[in-house]
Amino acid sequence: MTNLSVSAEPVDPVQLDKLAQVAVHTGLQLQVGQDLVMTAPIAALPLARLITKHAYAAGAGLVTTFYSDEEATLARYSHAPDASFDRAPSWLYDGMAKAYENGAARLAIAGDNPLLLASQDPARVSRANTANSIAYKPALEHISNFDINWNICAYPSPSWAAQVFPDLPIDQAVRKLAEAIFAASRVNLEDPIEAWRSHNAVLAERSAWLNGQRFSALHYSGPGTDLTIGLADDHEWHGGASVAKNGVTCNPNIPTEEVFTTPHAHRVEGTVSSTKPLSYQGTLIDEIQVRFEAGRIVEASASRGEDVLLKVLDTDEGSRRIGEVALVPHSSPISASGVLFYNTLFDENASCHIALGQCYSKCFVDGASLTPEQIAAKGGNSSLIHIDWMIGSDQIDIDGIRADGEKVPVMRKGEWA
Amino acid sequence: MTNLSVSAEPVDPVQLDKLAQVAVHTGLQLQVGQDLVMTAPIAALPLARLITKHAYAAGAGLVTTFYSDEEATLARYSHAPDASFDRAPSWLYDGMAKAYENGAARLAIAGDNPLLLASQDPARVSRANTANSIAYKPALEHISNFDINWNICAYPSPSWAAQVFPDLPIDQAVRKLAEAIFAASRVNLEDPIEAWRSHNAVLAERSAWLNGQRFSALHYSGPGTDLTIGLADDHEWHGGASVAKNGVTCNPNIPTEEVFTTPHAHRVEGTVSSTKPLSYQGTLIDEIQVRFEAGRIVEASASRGEDVLLKVLDTDEGSRRIGEVALVPHSSPISASGVLFYNTLFDENASCHIALGQCYSKCFVDGASLTPEQIAAKGGNSSLIHIDWMIGSDQIDIDGIRADGEKVPVMRKGEWA
Repeated sequence: MTNLSVSAEPVDPVQLDKLAQVAVHTGLQLQVGQDLVMTAPIAALPLARLITKHAYAAGAGLVTTFYSDEEATLARYSHAPDASFDRAPSWLYDGMAKAYENGAARLAIAGDNPLLLASQDPARVSRANTANSIAYKPALEHISNFDINWNICAYPSPSWAAQVFPDLPIDQAVRKLAEAIFAASRVNLEDPIEAWRSHNAVLAERSAWLNGQRFSALHYSGPGTDLTIGLADDHEWHGGASVAKNGVTCNPNIPTEEVFTTPHAHRVEGTVSSTKPLSYQGTLIDEIQVRFEAGRIVEASASRGEDVLLKVLDTDEGSRRIGEVALVPHSSPISASGVLFYNTLFDENASCHIALGQCYSKCFVDGASLTPEQIAAKGGNSSLIHIDWMIGSDQIDIDGIRADGEKVPVMRKGEWA
Repeated sequence: MTNLSVSAEPVDPVQLDKLAQVAVHTGLQLQVGQDLVMTAPIAALPLARLITKHAYAAGAGLVTTFYSDEEATLARYSHAPDASFDRAPSWLYDGMAKAYENGAARLAIAGDNPLLLASQDPARVSRANTANSIAYKPALEHISNFDINWNICAYPSPSWAAQVFPDLPIDQAVRKLAEAIFAASRVNLEDPIEAWRSHNAVLAERSAWLNGQRFSALHYSGPGTDLTIGLADDHEWHGGASVAKNGVTCNPNIPTEEVFTTPHAHRVEGTVSSTKPLSYQGTLIDEIQVRFEAGRIVEASASRGEDVLLKVLDTDEGSRRIGEVALVPHSSPISASGVLFYNTLFDENASCHIALGQCYSKCFVDGASLTPEQIAAKGGNSSLIHIDWMIGSDQIDIDGIRADGEKVPVMRKGEWA
């Protein structure tokens, strides 16, 4: 009698190859002759290589990849002088910004240990993040303004899998995380490219309905939550595939389940509680509770990571206001998987969420032609940060409020009404 | 009965850690608060991590590492459109140049497969190299002008070890290459830092003797070689540790056995044959024979890689002239090891050599204060390339020629006379 064996490798190479194809074709829609700037944790090397191959096969000009290394990050916290924590490689980020200005696309592979810095000094973590955010802003603006086609997808790094499935042996943890990523990214299906086409159609339909309603605000109610989010003037809902300013239709997030728009930075009132823990740059922030007045967070607490949260809120003028509101049904496949990923790319697609900080200019009617001043005048927020956190659950009701005060049910118990 | 076992790991972790310390302290003499830009093949991750640790412990501001991946390079040759081979990441190299201008040090870990591109189309290899050289020039100038402290050291990557010891199983090949690197880099000694101090003193003494002689030319004779190399006006010999323009004394090459200076770009006459194969950007060039007239290569051939050689010579105006002449005794430890590394960092330190292309401005009296025009007027060559190749052996005699024609024996049968 022999044992029946499944794939010997924890990460199925066939599905990984499909993920690389989805990232290049659906995620980026990489153009012939277009350069690609990729970032990846070093553990994600197998996926980065497949993406490189498919990018060149799709006609890429030049693929340039930067690998981050968790060991190097930890070596900094263990050995570097204190002054190091105010430094960032602005020369590199300025170069990336130039690459985007010259037409390069951008792909990021997510996969870092979400708790890498959990035991480090929060003041140092915050200083390092702030220095990095300031240096990264010129490059990030090309992403948040959607100047170019970009994509984030994910690889099941062992250090990440160990956090998601702490009770499993590492090989099994990686296998389970890989399966969850592949399912959420629709690459476990026969024809993932086609599956993404029809999924994008569903998200486009929901966005169109919301745009037709022209709500001036959304009202959220549920345990610990009584929140009115005013929507920005001339806001526009988006979801799934979207056209970047360079004319390329891409899917910035693989996976994605959300439809989202820009809230009014000065018209948010009430209280809201997070419904899932938030992993932010290596630390976990849990059970967030905040109160808004005139769009500004005036009270904030968390049961875990409160010191990090409070420092984040003090990053700049816009970091106490929100720049994104997103609707996700509680029954989304990612939520239904029951897996808490400790990674925003996944967890934000399991739950309605809002984001502190920078808004997306594309979430305005004719957003591509607006100046930063025009965006601000319509209520769009501006900040160095953009941090999504989850406020949805099966106990949340959401109503749309029209300009005349009429209420329209949008979600009931976490599902589309 | 149990087997006696040696270190289970092919690369001895204790010696690797010593190499990292030598690279940071002797190689770079990294300063407190100084940033570091590092490049490394992904296979060299263990050494890059140790260097990162020791750099931070030495007070580094920020260490930024770029990993190259041989698989990605090959994917380009297998899948990219033809136009890709004229592209290079100038935005990245311009950023590196900016980092150096802002005071960063530079460390490169060598370790690539020297024959990675041997079976690729030489025309494409040449186009890719030329595009890269043009884009890299602004950054490279900070190195060739010795504006900053920099270092190259080496890691025994499996793909490199497999070329050096093709008949050994890969673990044994890596172990043997590691031992050869550690010995050449003096980290197999009890106190490598002290060993480098006394080695630098020997090289400084040889440089001082040569500088005292004020030769106007060197004459090489041996099988296939009858060559007179005029030395640049106000040339200065250097070797071992050297002071960069930023005031830091560093050892740019680990290992190093050479003393070297700037030849006169227009005063080289005669014929010379290479004595070791040259690995140039993934291809092997062997049995080079060239003839110089008035400093310019007017005839060139090679038994292998001739097409690559001829393309390299046509890179630009300066690529047919030489920019460096270096003296290494045939009995150097690297030569004595009998290992042909197929890597210039090592092979050039086993043999007298010359370099096609760009000269080093520091190899002039008061070189730091000279303009490019002044350097050219003194006979310093300028080019996008700088390619060392080996012309020394135990059959080569070298005489120094004074301005008045007097001949002084410098080397006999490959050894200091």
